[in-house]
Amino acid sequence: MSKGVTPKSENYSKWYTDVITKAELADYGPVKGTMVIRPYGYQIWDNLKNYLDEEFKKTGHTNAYFPLFIPKSFLAKEAEHVQGFAKECAIVTHSRLINNKDKTDLIPDPQSKLEEEIIVRPTSETIIWSMYKKWINSHRDLPILINQWANVVRWEMRTRLFLRTSEFLWQEGHTAHSTEVEAKEETLKILNIYQDIVENILGIPVICGMKTDAEKFAGAETTYCIEAMMGDKRALQAGTSHYLGQNFAKAFNVKFQDTDNTEKHVYATSWGVSTRLIGALIMVHGDDKGLRLPPNIAPIQVVFVPIYKTSDELEKIKKYLTPTFEYCAVNTIRYYLDDREQVSPGYKFNEWEMKGIPIRIEVGQRDLMEDNVTLVRRDTFKKIVDKRDCITPKIASILKQIQTALFTEALQFQKSNTYKTNEYKEFKELVRKGAFIDCGWDGNPETELKIKSDTNATIRCIPMKQNIKNLNCIYSSKKAKYQVIFAKAY
Amino acid sequence: MSKGVTPKSENYSKWYTDVITKAELADYGPVKGTMVIRPYGYQIWDNLKNYLDEEFKKTGHTNAYFPLFIPKSFLAKEAEHVQGFAKECAIVTHSRLINNKDKTDLIPDPQSKLEEEIIVRPTSETIIWSMYKKWINSHRDLPILINQWANVVRWEMRTRLFLRTSEFLWQEGHTAHSTEVEAKEETLKILNIYQDIVENILGIPVICGMKTDAEKFAGAETTYCIEAMMGDKRALQAGTSHYLGQNFAKAFNVKFQDTDNTEKHVYATSWGVSTRLIGALIMVHGDDKGLRLPPNIAPIQVVFVPIYKTSDELEKIKKYLTPTFEYCAVNTIRYYLDDREQVSPGYKFNEWEMKGIPIRIEVGQRDLMEDNVTLVRRDTFKKIVDKRDCITPKIASILKQIQTALFTEALQFQKSNTYKTNEYKEFKELVRKGAFIDCGWDGNPETELKIKSDTNATIRCIPMKQNIKNLNCIYSSKKAKYQVIFAKAY
Repeated sequence: MSKGVTPKSENYSKWYTDVITKAELADYGPVKGTMVIRPYGYQIWDNLKNYLDEEFKKTGHTNAYFPLFIPKSFLAKEAEHVQGFAKECAIVTHSRLINNKDKTDLIPDPQSKLEEEIIVRPTSETIIWSMYKKWINSHRDLPILINQWANVVRWEMRTRLFLRTSEFLWQEGHTAHSTEVEAKEETLKILNIYQDIVENILGIPVICGMKTDAEKFAGAETTYCIEAMMGDKRALQAGTSHYLGQNFAKAFNVKFQDTDNTEKHVYATSWGVSTRLIGALIMVHGDDKGLRLPPNIAPIQVVFVPIYKTSDELEKIKKYLTPTFEYCAVNTIRYYLDDREQVSPGYKFNEWEMKGIPIRIEVGQRDLMEDNVTLVRRDTFKKIVDKRDCITPKIASILKQIQTALFTEALQFQKSNTYKTNEYKEFKELVRKGAFIDCGWDGNPETELKIKSDTNATIRCIPMKQNIKNLNCIYSSKKAKYQVIFAKAY
Repeated sequence: MSKGVTPKSENYSKWYTDVITKAELADYGPVKGTMVIRPYGYQIWDNLKNYLDEEFKKTGHTNAYFPLFIPKSFLAKEAEHVQGFAKECAIVTHSRLINNKDKTDLIPDPQSKLEEEIIVRPTSETIIWSMYKKWINSHRDLPILINQWANVVRWEMRTRLFLRTSEFLWQEGHTAHSTEVEAKEETLKILNIYQDIVENILGIPVICGMKTDAEKFAGAETTYCIEAMMGDKRALQAGTSHYLGQNFAKAFNVKFQDTDNTEKHVYATSWGVSTRLIGALIMVHGDDKGLRLPPNIAPIQVVFVPIYKTSDELEKIKKYLTPTFEYCAVNTIRYYLDDREQVSPGYKFNEWEMKGIPIRIEVGQRDLMEDNVTLVRRDTFKKIVDKRDCITPKIASILKQIQTALFTEALQFQKSNTYKTNEYKEFKELVRKGAFIDCGWDGNPETELKIKSDTNATIRCIPMKQNIKNLNCIYSSKKAKYQVIFAKAY
């Protein structure tokens, strides 16, 4: 572990990349825009996957897998959809490499040119609805509640690890329903799951709401989202759940025979969260020492660092800590004993702080003699030195405290950086210094566009709870149609 | 559930596809060569993943994720590797679609043509070793024991669901070691894990061995494999573990400073199994009624089918079965109560037989009166009618019996269709009728090639246990260098 990270206050963007690199979460891949998720980052993703997957299954969803490759013509079937994705997609045109004439290079074999180009999926609505057409005939075939864990590709020139990469990992749910009501319920049910897990597992407070037409998913009737405030006060869209109406059913002509014997188009939803959430996790909780992980998501929750010189001393410490290890095992606490010989305790402290492990327990020779252990909380660096048998049974509750503390701290930060205003001048000032701005909007897309071109702030969402009494539009001063949250966003 | 499947004996290939379609394991995707893995098929894959992942972790491996996209030039860095994969790869050449002149179609924007073409990974050795170069400096950085769960693409014109599709799911392990000995140990350790899981979870007996140079992985020093016999007596390569020597380390110039302060190239392994194993599962155990799943891999191990007319009757049956449900829950047996109203019990029997559920338990009104249940084994169709409290505690042991019975049956089949011979005429006859042929080979690649062009049989493996005393080559009659298994293969 080399030296620390660039301070957050000095250069937020550099701080972010430093943390990712030094905590060994991810690395840049060789093709521009691609990312390697290193084992430590992948463990975080795997933990998150497990939580989400369990909730999806509890609510009746099953996993499946659809192809990576989409025929070009499919993308074009839904008019808005193609607008949204055609500009940034990977296009496969050939299927074989051959030597060039002087054998100095490999080139795509012209003979292998595809009749129809293939698009690497940017999202799977089109391919999935082409299959649903085969599978859906009657109301008895509905609902279909399918999720898939997959990689998707959207060509991105401005790479930012986890936040914006040309390939990323995600889950995408795609459901088919016989009624509008049921599909809308599904959309909100998923939004609730997202909020629950992002808040309670990742410790990231979010605002639930609806996207404006300008910001919604290409092909959706309504996009719901959870928006979070990052450490630099910018917003990050942390998850979306789309009510697609009958748009894709019509594009792919998917009808079912209803109980009344009439044929109807199917109603659809789609929803997803991605490895982007790891970016949020870093930006919401990280500090100048590196990551701070909420215990619920941390791959290691407690790290033990023995301080010793001889292997005999190490053995004594291990023996001494046995009841604590057992306590962790019984309470399904993920712990790790770092007994590496080639690096010093100080090096280990730095490394585990960088990696954001919630609790560190140190035991040295003096602790042994005095029957003590030293516990250090990563969130506050608060140190407790106390009897082993006094601290051990408290570990689980300290982990809970850390989980709550990180969430509370983030919520406090979000609240204290959210402002209400009805003065456009103040609005612009707030955007400049970074904030969520809670204000009125007249519902006119032109107003929205003007504010965006003026300030770079966009409407992050129209929160679920609306109060537009006496509220005027921040820009036009007309009576507000919606209460909205504006911010600059990732 | 429509009618049954084409009998195995009538048309094996059609039988195979019928089972996949009717058991709803998979479907063809819209792009030629692609496959949709439907929820039931995906659950089987997920179960298999969990078993493998647990074993990989127990042996010190961690998961990571490397990009889908490989620069074309990387593929060319290892001479044999590029030979193996250049002929069948998906090549990305553009990153944007635009309207054509008359706006009737979308075309790749010539302006978006990539400077260097990108290959969709057929396997990840090259991209991973380009990263290992960044991560490895010293012997302290070794070993690296990484696995990845991913999709890969190899262009295939002859599609066969699960067995041969242009995209498939797999795991690929890529490890880096400081010594040859350690890397070779790793290769065999993984082969053992593969054998263990394929035999004990999937119930598929395998022969462990080494590939000949003609059949080994493009870029490997040695390829070890597990080979299984399918129901039509053809062989299927069920998993491979490669010792790569220093080939990729040299291609990507990956060196480490050893304890003796000299710089050395790193030693490598790679290994993988794929969704192909689901194809093997179908072909080894399936019968004319559909799938037969070994309990260890079955998404549902016991299905309960209540036979009732009124909802009152159904309630009574549910109540009556409560102790049996509880038994299943306590013993972590995966069970499912099929109380659908719109389909008949007979329909349900067929459906669950098609899906290969190991045990079906039926309860009708007469069973209720007589305090009985009816248990039907999917492997043998043997029916037991007995007191509920007598059958319930036996469920776990019956599942174990089924697991063993399916393996034993498959092993018996493999053994009774494996022949020793030293007569080439008999050899050809055996190949024609379908068999594993255990015989001598002089070790000459030309002999191997001649036999292949003559009979279509290939050397599936050089089994681990060799006995070449008094053995002559089946073709040249020269003294055998190896004892080998010949067969026609998928």
